[in-house]
Amino acid sequence: MEFSLKEAMEILEQTPATLESFVGGLSKGWLSCTEGEGTWNAKEVISHLIEGEKVNWIPRLRFILQEGNCKPFPAFDRYSHLNDEKNSMTEALIAFKEIRKENLRNLRELITTEAQLELKGLHPELGEVKVRELISTWAVHDLTHINQITRVIAKRYKKEVGPWKEYLGIINR
Amino acid sequence: MEFSLKEAMEILEQTPATLESFVGGLSKGWLSCTEGEGTWNAKEVISHLIEGEKVNWIPRLRFILQEGNCKPFPAFDRYSHLNDEKNSMTEALIAFKEIRKENLRNLRELITTEAQLELKGLHPELGEVKVRELISTWAVHDLTHINQITRVIAKRYKKEVGPWKEYLGIINR
Repeated sequence: MEFSLKEAMEILEQTPATLESFVGGLSKGWLSCTEGEGTWNAKEVISHLIEGEKVNWIPRLRFILQEGNCKPFPAFDRYSHLNDEKNSMTEALIAFKEIRKENLRNLRELITTEAQLELKGLHPELGEVKVRELISTWAVHDLTHINQITRVIAKRYKKEVGPWKEYLGIINR
Repeated sequence: MEFSLKEAMEILEQTPATLESFVGGLSKGWLSCTEGEGTWNAKEVISHLIEGEKVNWIPRLRFILQEGNCKPFPAFDRYSHLNDEKNSMTEALIAFKEIRKENLRNLRELITTEAQLELKGLHPELGEVKVRELISTWAVHDLTHINQITRVIAKRYKKEVGPWKEYLGIINR
């Protein structure tokens, strides 16, 4: 088993700065493109990450620590961030950076023993899950969404790359 | 057609800082993992990007400007960087940052008119390609490899995420 809290936190720590470097200087054309109707642009992805900080990861961790695996996690709306599209990309990046920092502080305060990593909660669809699986998923979820933004942005140039299209798997997905 | 030289350069400009934020602070466990035998770890991907700066993008652009589409691009070895694995990640990130900066300067000097973007070269396998397609491909190639690193790193936690595995497409690819 590869899990270590320190290493999982390295992933969680890098994401705000990575996203800032990645999309902070891009023109509107890059930031507004999507993969088609009903899919997210870069800012919607970052709004989704902010929402996860508010309602998903730390709240679920607290729920496991308080309730164990008798009661399932309360439900949340995975698309609620789409109702809150008034911020600019700059504001979204700052908001994400701040709430992530606060949540990493929360994580350090909540988890103080190795034994806590083995505690179990009840996911409404997936059944029994462990604290270390929740934290691992939080980290991989970040990577999923950085991955998504690279793909969304790359697809804008699907036609622009001309004959090279066939070498570039990312725009054919 | 979405192409603009300015916007393509925004993508090319962000990549060194994005990679530095992303992998610059990660432990060896993250940096040495691959997707299995014969696949690349994060540093091999960055070495590949450095190699592209040396032998691919700007050299091909110069070739088009000098030779047009009568002679095909000279061949290069896409795996040559795998023979040069002595540098640390920190050194690789610095080397990439420097050579990319130099190549963006070269690009600005070489392309001074919109008409040059329509000039044609001869790709040995793909046939006729345009300067603007070469530059677009250079940008999308960056995104492809940021995408690849997120996937390589995420897969290290394939088992660690437990039952969440089914929600995380990135680790199942």
